[in-house]
Amino acid sequence: MTLTADEEVTASGALGRTPCLVIDVEVAGEQYRRIAAAFAGAQIHYAVKANPEPALLRALVEAGCRFDVASRAEIDLCLAAGASPAALSYGHPIKKPGDIAYAYARGVRLFAFDSEGELGKIVAHAPGSGVICRLLASSQGARWPLSRKFGCTPDMAIDLMKSAARQGLDPAGLAFHVGSQQLDPGRWEPSVALAADIFRTLEQSGHRPRILNAGGGFPVDYRVSALPITAYAAAIEAAMSRHFGRDRPALMIEPGRYIAAPAGVLHAEVVLIARKSYEDESRWVYLDVGRFGGLAETEDEAIQYALATTRDDGPMGPVILAGPTCDSVDIMYQHAHYELPLSLKAGDVVRILGTGAYTATYASVGFNGFPPLRTQIT
Amino acid sequence: MTLTADEEVTASGALGRTPCLVIDVEVAGEQYRRIAAAFAGAQIHYAVKANPEPALLRALVEAGCRFDVASRAEIDLCLAAGASPAALSYGHPIKKPGDIAYAYARGVRLFAFDSEGELGKIVAHAPGSGVICRLLASSQGARWPLSRKFGCTPDMAIDLMKSAARQGLDPAGLAFHVGSQQLDPGRWEPSVALAADIFRTLEQSGHRPRILNAGGGFPVDYRVSALPITAYAAAIEAAMSRHFGRDRPALMIEPGRYIAAPAGVLHAEVVLIARKSYEDESRWVYLDVGRFGGLAETEDEAIQYALATTRDDGPMGPVILAGPTCDSVDIMYQHAHYELPLSLKAGDVVRILGTGAYTATYASVGFNGFPPLRTQIT
Repeated sequence: MTLTADEEVTASGALGRTPCLVIDVEVAGEQYRRIAAAFAGAQIHYAVKANPEPALLRALVEAGCRFDVASRAEIDLCLAAGASPAALSYGHPIKKPGDIAYAYARGVRLFAFDSEGELGKIVAHAPGSGVICRLLASSQGARWPLSRKFGCTPDMAIDLMKSAARQGLDPAGLAFHVGSQQLDPGRWEPSVALAADIFRTLEQSGHRPRILNAGGGFPVDYRVSALPITAYAAAIEAAMSRHFGRDRPALMIEPGRYIAAPAGVLHAEVVLIARKSYEDESRWVYLDVGRFGGLAETEDEAIQYALATTRDDGPMGPVILAGPTCDSVDIMYQHAHYELPLSLKAGDVVRILGTGAYTATYASVGFNGFPPLRTQIT
Repeated sequence: MTLTADEEVTASGALGRTPCLVIDVEVAGEQYRRIAAAFAGAQIHYAVKANPEPALLRALVEAGCRFDVASRAEIDLCLAAGASPAALSYGHPIKKPGDIAYAYARGVRLFAFDSEGELGKIVAHAPGSGVICRLLASSQGARWPLSRKFGCTPDMAIDLMKSAARQGLDPAGLAFHVGSQQLDPGRWEPSVALAADIFRTLEQSGHRPRILNAGGGFPVDYRVSALPITAYAAAIEAAMSRHFGRDRPALMIEPGRYIAAPAGVLHAEVVLIARKSYEDESRWVYLDVGRFGGLAETEDEAIQYALATTRDDGPMGPVILAGPTCDSVDIMYQHAHYELPLSLKAGDVVRILGTGAYTATYASVGFNGFPPLRTQIT
């Protein structure tokens, strides 16, 4: 992808100093409308952790989006952006008691959990609230896979939901997550099937959970393109029909990356291009942003962003892409076979595309004395 | 290790909210004096990136320490702490031209480099300065190993040093780094030998480099203890004698972790203890600090901190230790066989020992809406 001369002026001139994440909130709004259309009738909760930029949250409130929050600060940001507390789900299964009380006091009435310990806190600090129990799910096929950190086994989930009801909570539903940037549309079905089994078991003991939260994970185009969102919606719709039949719960989803990633372009400057030996085929290209400045998802080269420069119409050659800190793990791509123009030079701007999610808030406060990533709204 | 009742009061009472990194600057001063005594006559440059806390820098200035800086902000911090510009080495081999000019304007006269491109910038923006060429070194044996991001091959280093002289710079010396938390005292020798060869080659063409910067990497006690610093000093001293004989350059070292790590204790609160299946032997222990809040060096479980609670005199059991964010990679120790008291409960304080280095500045600005790690000085 080659920038036009005008874009270059914007990038290095009007833009000001790099690194800078430029967010186009209209793109986020379009992405919301696209996923809402694909999942007609579903409750769409934007995962605020992907990018909590106030202007972006305001645009999503206006578009009718709901929100998945993970902390006090995210609750405050959503409410400040005009969201109703009823549109908020506290989707993080691990919370301090004070955080639950804080959310409850502000009107939040839907909480995730996956353990007896967490349930006790919700009983104590958010009495009568709706709770959604998170199931352990396989995240095979995801570029940013999930560990066993969240979610419990089915037998435990059944016990926990019954326990929630006994303690005066509303056992509203079940949740699972198939891993972020999940490329395989078939990955949701096993958890939908599992959830349907648990719903039936719970119904036999008189409980009527009514929400299935199928999480996030919906992929975006990076260096490799994803299927259109309709492919994932169709696969989940088919799984819902197959496993729940006519007695379907409401579907809830929590897209974060899908809404925020395409809205962002990170403008970085080439600090140095070097070979470290006369035999090196690859050039080392050092940018002024790296793993500690916002590109944390390049850990293990998991998320591979597309790059654009003003010189992309010339011949290209292999590079190793590294960040600006004096830390030697601050390397983005060493094995992923990236190529950049042979004419690229120090001072040039490299645009890192699709960087609207999981970047700005991941940046360190000041590792090596480099300031955090700046965001600019267009 | 068990806290006394008094320590517990301090930890959870006077300390205020967790997570909080408590830094004892006197410990940092002691560590400086210890390493300065072990490396008698060497120039000790504290690697500011390890912990740039102003009070800590002031204590080191008073103790007579020099500084290794990696950015404008670190230069400003050192000068504000009372350091002389002559005591500063800009040890980061990759800098923006403006950063070199900034350093030069403030009196810095010693710069690292490892490529022709960087050399050109130093010639242009720091004329006449001393330069130290960084060699590629093996970091085998280090807990936080270095990649090939920094350092060039010996033949290139020779050419670069000659080129530096031709362009009016002072080819002051060579540098290498054996990897951080390097436990093996024998790891410095191969690079000392290599540097001695290069010194001799340069002397044959009339150059007289006078500094060997043996970098940092000096290990501290974490869960596993390191050898005393005197063991590393003795090994390096022996290598210097063996390979340089009587015609020895001045030795320069850049300890960061060695000085800062033992000065810090991170106080964290247990947010939740849970089992996620009835078959789980290990408990999941979720703290209010994790990989995105300052414990970045637990990536791949590389740095394994010692833990202390008030309940350590009771029976212990296996745990998986995870952080507070809703990100499933935010796990510190899953395979490292950590154990914590069976009586541990949510709300308890866990002290993470030896956390003075590479923690506070690694913390994210606000991932998941959690504020950055707070530092408190004692």
